Amino acid sequence: MGWTDGYIAVDWGTTNRRAYLIDGAGHCIDEFEDGMGILSVPDGGFPNAVSEIRQRLGDRPLLLAGMIGSNRGWHEAPYVPCPADIDDLVKGLVRAGDHEAIVPGVSFIGDGRADVMRGEEVQLLGAAAAGLLEPEALVCHPGTHNKWALLRQGRIHDFRTVMTGELFSLLKGHSILADLLQGEVEPNDTFKEAVRHSIAQQALPADLFAVRARVLLGQARKEDAASWTSGLLIGCDVHIGLARSSDPQVHVMGRPELTRLYATAIKEAGREAIELDGEQCFLAGIHEIARRIDG
Amino acid sequence: MGWTDGYIAVDWGTTNRRAYLIDGAGHCIDEFEDGMGILSVPDGGFPNAVSEIRQRLGDRPLLLAGMIGSNRGWHEAPYVPCPADIDDLVKGLVRAGDHEAIVPGVSFIGDGRADVMRGEEVQLLGAAAAGLLEPEALVCHPGTHNKWALLRQGRIHDFRTVMTGELFSLLKGHSILADLLQGEVEPNDTFKEAVRHSIAQQALPADLFAVRARVLLGQARKEDAASWTSGLLIGCDVHIGLARSSDPQVHVMGRPELTRLYATAIKEAGREAIELDGEQCFLAGIHEIARRIDG
Repeated sequence: MGWTDGYIAVDWGTTNRRAYLIDGAGHCIDEFEDGMGILSVPDGGFPNAVSEIRQRLGDRPLLLAGMIGSNRGWHEAPYVPCPADIDDLVKGLVRAGDHEAIVPGVSFIGDGRADVMRGEEVQLLGAAAAGLLEPEALVCHPGTHNKWALLRQGRIHDFRTVMTGELFSLLKGHSILADLLQGEVEPNDTFKEAVRHSIAQQALPADLFAVRARVLLGQARKEDAASWTSGLLIGCDVHIGLARSSDPQVHVMGRPELTRLYATAIKEAGREAIELDGEQCFLAGIHEIARRIDG
Repeated sequence: MGWTDGYIAVDWGTTNRRAYLIDGAGHCIDEFEDGMGILSVPDGGFPNAVSEIRQRLGDRPLLLAGMIGSNRGWHEAPYVPCPADIDDLVKGLVRAGDHEAIVPGVSFIGDGRADVMRGEEVQLLGAAAAGLLEPEALVCHPGTHNKWALLRQGRIHDFRTVMTGELFSLLKGHSILADLLQGEVEPNDTFKEAVRHSIAQQALPADLFAVRARVLLGQARKEDAASWTSGLLIGCDVHIGLARSSDPQVHVMGRPELTRLYATAIKEAGREAIELDGEQCFLAGIHEIARRIDG
């Protein structure tokens, strides 16, 4: 079973996984997504969870990225430190079997900070390899934990994570604001105003309580609360991220429903935003890795 | 049944209530606390919940403060707008029966902000009436939702709420940091360093994710994570609150286990902190109100 005859690539996260059957030319010819994230796999259940992928997509070598390589995943793949490029990821591959390889995450230690990513590195370096990003770029990768990455000479030079998506989800699921946040978030005028307000005020934990007070006192409409709150959180996030670099352009990579929110916020903050589809970047990155395993 | 013969004061919150039997001279002669907060009272259950208090403390008039006056409480007592003093609270009392009165909350609208409090107003104005606070003071009242209040001429002139306590509780209960936050929070060197870091960095949602990354990468001890995270949140809170006023002294009012954390953080930020016991302030305030009902 050689990689050049085709393989299966899996982006295996905490709550979901996406599997792609890739042919020898690097084209995706079949795929599926399901809710079998690593937290859904019972103790000792990874061999079965992997077999199930092969039953659906064929008996091919497997290249796995994301939280599957964490200490809660199948086999731990230790973080590769920044600066990191595709060759560093290939050197850090962990073999889970003869035909199964796990891509390592990337870590950053410096400036009195410490940070980690798992999964985003494939998309970032894949986009660079595919020419979708310049070798010098500021990239925003929204998700549960948004990553602001600095590419320098085509390598991940430094990055910083902001837990915006998880904070929104905690507020929506369990906080005093829960009943106000069930509506749709849209990059509308309310969202934009909240982004500007959040950047100007720098007082997020106060602005969050005020979401409820504004509605109670008739200063804001209940229907606007979800977009306003998302704008407060993303405004704060963008302020942190843009401090990383003065690049006039920011590339925003990920799922389109998130990249459009961040692109809107980045424009409100005075920079140009270029959206990239995260899945396309993942496929470009994972194929660069697969090519080099055999190479 | 006259108020001057003694009465029952209740500080009735969302998740708890504290009831005090007060004699005609204003002394507390009996009390109890239980978990019968307003969210634990079934629909239509307030008359019974009130009777139960009288069964335990005697058949006296009842003076109720806190969330009992909210739209989820027994009878809604509309907010009194800032600036507000004790007489404004007395004018805004809502009679739930011949011998039951509910204290209104206080609202603030201005500077493009809106804010509300229920319960803290009794403590703030009670402390002022009892001479525990100067007529001009900056007061910090930590709790689930910390209040920073400006007293001017003995009135609540302006205030701002920061949802620090609730954010810590969401992170501890439901976030990716949950397993790191189960330890005790102490105002130790780790806490103080986190306060200084948070004030200097102004990047709370990034610093929160880094709590986990620092432990994963061996840059911090798991046992320190709870104090560090609390320091990050309270540091951000104190930065917002101290911007309200240049008063060199800040009064910190509330439960001692919270006031000592905030007092430590306020000192790290270069101001003097004076702790006041919230229960004592509540009793002073509620008695000022009771005196004026008969007066």
